[in-house]
Amino acid sequence: MTIIHGEIRTGAYYDSVILMQLQRTLSGLHGIIDAGVVMGTQANKDVLAQSSLWTAELQEAKADDLVIVLRAEDVVVAQAALDQVDQLLATRRRGGGVEDYRPKTLESAAKMLPEARWVLVSVPGRYAAEVAREALLMDKHVFLYSDNVSLENEVALKKLASQKGLLIMGPDCGTAIVNGFGLGFANQVRQGRIGIVAASGTGLQQVSSRIHQLGMGITHAIGTGGRDLSEAVGAVTAYQGLDLLRRDSETHIIVLISKPPSKRAANELVNAARKVGKPVVVNFIGHPITIHTVDNVQFATTFDETAALAVQLATAKKDSVSELKLDVTCFASGQRYLRGLFSGGTLAYEALLILQDYLPAVYSNAPLDKTYLLRDSLVSQEHTIIDLGEDEFTVGRLHPMMDNDLRIRRLKKEADDPEVALILLDVVLGHGAHPDPAEELAPVIATVRQKAQKAGRHLVVIAIVVGTDEDPQDLGAQVEKLEGSGAMVLLSNEQAVRNAGRLASALNPQPDQQKINPVDLSTITQPLFAINVGLESFSESLKSQGAAVIQMDWRPPARGNEKLMALLERMKGAK
Amino acid sequence: MTIIHGEIRTGAYYDSVILMQLQRTLSGLHGIIDAGVVMGTQANKDVLAQSSLWTAELQEAKADDLVIVLRAEDVVVAQAALDQVDQLLATRRRGGGVEDYRPKTLESAAKMLPEARWVLVSVPGRYAAEVAREALLMDKHVFLYSDNVSLENEVALKKLASQKGLLIMGPDCGTAIVNGFGLGFANQVRQGRIGIVAASGTGLQQVSSRIHQLGMGITHAIGTGGRDLSEAVGAVTAYQGLDLLRRDSETHIIVLISKPPSKRAANELVNAARKVGKPVVVNFIGHPITIHTVDNVQFATTFDETAALAVQLATAKKDSVSELKLDVTCFASGQRYLRGLFSGGTLAYEALLILQDYLPAVYSNAPLDKTYLLRDSLVSQEHTIIDLGEDEFTVGRLHPMMDNDLRIRRLKKEADDPEVALILLDVVLGHGAHPDPAEELAPVIATVRQKAQKAGRHLVVIAIVVGTDEDPQDLGAQVEKLEGSGAMVLLSNEQAVRNAGRLASALNPQPDQQKINPVDLSTITQPLFAINVGLESFSESLKSQGAAVIQMDWRPPARGNEKLMALLERMKGAK
Repeated sequence: MTIIHGEIRTGAYYDSVILMQLQRTLSGLHGIIDAGVVMGTQANKDVLAQSSLWTAELQEAKADDLVIVLRAEDVVVAQAALDQVDQLLATRRRGGGVEDYRPKTLESAAKMLPEARWVLVSVPGRYAAEVAREALLMDKHVFLYSDNVSLENEVALKKLASQKGLLIMGPDCGTAIVNGFGLGFANQVRQGRIGIVAASGTGLQQVSSRIHQLGMGITHAIGTGGRDLSEAVGAVTAYQGLDLLRRDSETHIIVLISKPPSKRAANELVNAARKVGKPVVVNFIGHPITIHTVDNVQFATTFDETAALAVQLATAKKDSVSELKLDVTCFASGQRYLRGLFSGGTLAYEALLILQDYLPAVYSNAPLDKTYLLRDSLVSQEHTIIDLGEDEFTVGRLHPMMDNDLRIRRLKKEADDPEVALILLDVVLGHGAHPDPAEELAPVIATVRQKAQKAGRHLVVIAIVVGTDEDPQDLGAQVEKLEGSGAMVLLSNEQAVRNAGRLASALNPQPDQQKINPVDLSTITQPLFAINVGLESFSESLKSQGAAVIQMDWRPPARGNEKLMALLERMKGAK
Repeated sequence: MTIIHGEIRTGAYYDSVILMQLQRTLSGLHGIIDAGVVMGTQANKDVLAQSSLWTAELQEAKADDLVIVLRAEDVVVAQAALDQVDQLLATRRRGGGVEDYRPKTLESAAKMLPEARWVLVSVPGRYAAEVAREALLMDKHVFLYSDNVSLENEVALKKLASQKGLLIMGPDCGTAIVNGFGLGFANQVRQGRIGIVAASGTGLQQVSSRIHQLGMGITHAIGTGGRDLSEAVGAVTAYQGLDLLRRDSETHIIVLISKPPSKRAANELVNAARKVGKPVVVNFIGHPITIHTVDNVQFATTFDETAALAVQLATAKKDSVSELKLDVTCFASGQRYLRGLFSGGTLAYEALLILQDYLPAVYSNAPLDKTYLLRDSLVSQEHTIIDLGEDEFTVGRLHPMMDNDLRIRRLKKEADDPEVALILLDVVLGHGAHPDPAEELAPVIATVRQKAQKAGRHLVVIAIVVGTDEDPQDLGAQVEKLEGSGAMVLLSNEQAVRNAGRLASALNPQPDQQKINPVDLSTITQPLFAINVGLESFSESLKSQGAAVIQMDWRPPARGNEKLMALLERMKGAK
């Protein structure tokens, strides 16, 4: 037979480590079978009830109250244990090494360690935003571990940080590695060539650990907090992180991790990633993707794959994919558009799919999105990809792989359009197809290019030859004829379309997106000096890594008494 | 000054090759500048108008009418050219080698070449279904090149084929390679170890050509027609193809290509692909994916990637991923469920993501789909993944990476549940985390496993250790302690979750899906004998590849006269 005995202490604040330690000590006392020491939130009360640590009178406890409850052999033993609580808490309070003087304000902490450019904040969520704001106003970068911080506060803090060129990792940022120093929860990972930006704590830990296990290492791992890539926050920290790693010469590969971001944040971040000039591996965990690779950006779907891909890129020789030179100066003003005249339906489809990453809108008679359906299949609009093998064109007419007539007529027409810069054609060889397509197409390509040139225009024609060296048409001869006409020839639809996309994109530059205030690179490259506000174990951990840390002796305003705090707030406002 | 002169011929049928040849011949006549010879569909009339081959009276032409139009130097020359049309057509008609007798019915063709197991159909769409049906009724497999065949006809034809264990590729199937013989448009691709099933003509050609370019080859490439994976058709041909390649011992790798399929067809086909016992590369072009790999199935997004991945798999040594043995006999009846108790939020998220491929429903306090939100975070339902680091659990309580109390309580509770077979735990090491989590967790794991065993149950515990050999906790010692408790330990969340998913899935077997009537394997492994109905060039192409082919002299019923055809239909009905 056991009894449950508990008490509620109102308006008392203790940090979570102390509560855990108190619970353990109580559990270990003679005659005590189990103990619970928690703040009186509904979730915590539910857990107590589930653990057979519950009496009806504890229902009174509010979120700010401390609940202490014991399962014991009898009431006498339980009461004796409860009577020791004050003494136990007092011991814990004195727990920190006597040698350390602990400043009670950020200001005095900063005076003690003027080199400290970082403030770590792990106080309870409802106090954390204010501490972080104070740190930012003192021009410190912030690692904000605390969760339970409101979205409004996050937006305001990141706006402030961005204005001041400061980094705020979090809220709810569990981990980061800055210049080899692990903040919060962080694995000891070898130094290396891979930099990480992550809106995911254990994602960052899993990927960095796997990179280490695969024999490679990292430069920095910048946490952003789990909500950074939401519509409201707008990926402020991720942009800053990406920009820092772009400028960091030690970082050769960048990894970008997040739970599914808002569509806008995802698009804009990927666009920013395409401009860093380094390979980027993106894992927007659970975010659907339709194309694995766009320029220097590759998408992974699991942490293992992310780590493996980053390691592979960090060790790989550069790919020598034939890339069209992006010289746009040879075009006449007004030449802007791409026109694709396909005989292969799925080749046209793949082209549309890939071009999504290069051009905002591509019209077609078989578009991915009905918004871009051509009003008239025979008349191109802006950028256009036509599938000439669609049913509409093949009633009582041979397929364009057999009969080039329709395509040649269309090619001439597109080439005459002064807004056209670039024409894509597929040339499908093989059994059943036209016995010598290049013989018919090449002269027309040569003619239309010359005609354009006479009119002061530069016309690029890219031909995608699908075939093998055993095909009846003689692949080599086909390529030669087409190249002789001045066409650029590729055997891969993907490579051809990517080249076309890059060129068309360069001819239609988009206004540059969201500017961020750059964070000074020395932020991540200098040795770490920090002030820690909150969980003491984070200080100890940093010290064990060789960082200089000041632990602040933080107490909630008015010792956590809500009424008193409100009064203080009002008094501040009255000043 | 030129003139346009044309005429309409009603109710005349000529195949598209003849029309193309007539157009060319007319274009080459003295005084003729351009010529158009097409069936009078609106699309064709629009093309004529665009090509400056148009006069108002041609507007009268209907889809069944032949339109002949000339741009010439004067009317006399044009009329002289038109006067030659009958003679030119008559010459063309006699064009085929005199030596060949051409049967006028499928029946007589089949008598001439009894070995013919294939009928190729490329007659105009509105006649094609009837020819294909006739072929199926004669127990022939069908390659149905024709497009413009109705969806209703496709469904009916595939139902009939499936019932009879016959293969019908198409309608709108541009290409296939059967035992080295290219049907329709097909590249000459080296024989090899890769088999292809494709609902995409030029997709199949691009991938097979790329495979050849990369030095590898294919066994068979089975076309299905572009609509096979639609909801209405239900992927009948794709299933048959997949099943054939599964049984074909020469095929070691299978590639499956389609434009975005219906959700149901995609799910069911991927499930079927997971059971073939061979690596499968899937490219559902443009279909969003969230996980690249599930068991033996890998997803690619472009043709280049598809080919590269297939070649890589065809040459690779087998991966030695540690897989949990799927012995489900050691569990007590009633043990069915998986419970994951995670301290890492994104690890939990990745687990939910991966488990989608193994279990129909997984509940969570942070589910991917709100349908599976736990009613009470403290009470698991069926398969459950709990994120114990969620905000709800961390108010006034240390994070579970620092404090194992909450997790240990929950672990005991889950282990007591007689329906639980499998518990997943992450153990995150590193700075800031608990100094020795295994010390606390291992004894509990050992205890609950023993307790379950005493109760006649078998409890599997999988621990995911996230960490490096430089972490302060000593990775090796942590793994050893956990393994000592009887837990299975993995360093990769993905591998752990996949093992868990496989096991849980084996404990909850799903009823087997859609049965298909298998097609005899000899269909694709025997030398090709075929009857060709339609485009003569397909016969020639097959002959050049060494196949035995009979070209049928096909004419539309009633020479394509719609009224007469309707009358014939009615007479048939009256019989």
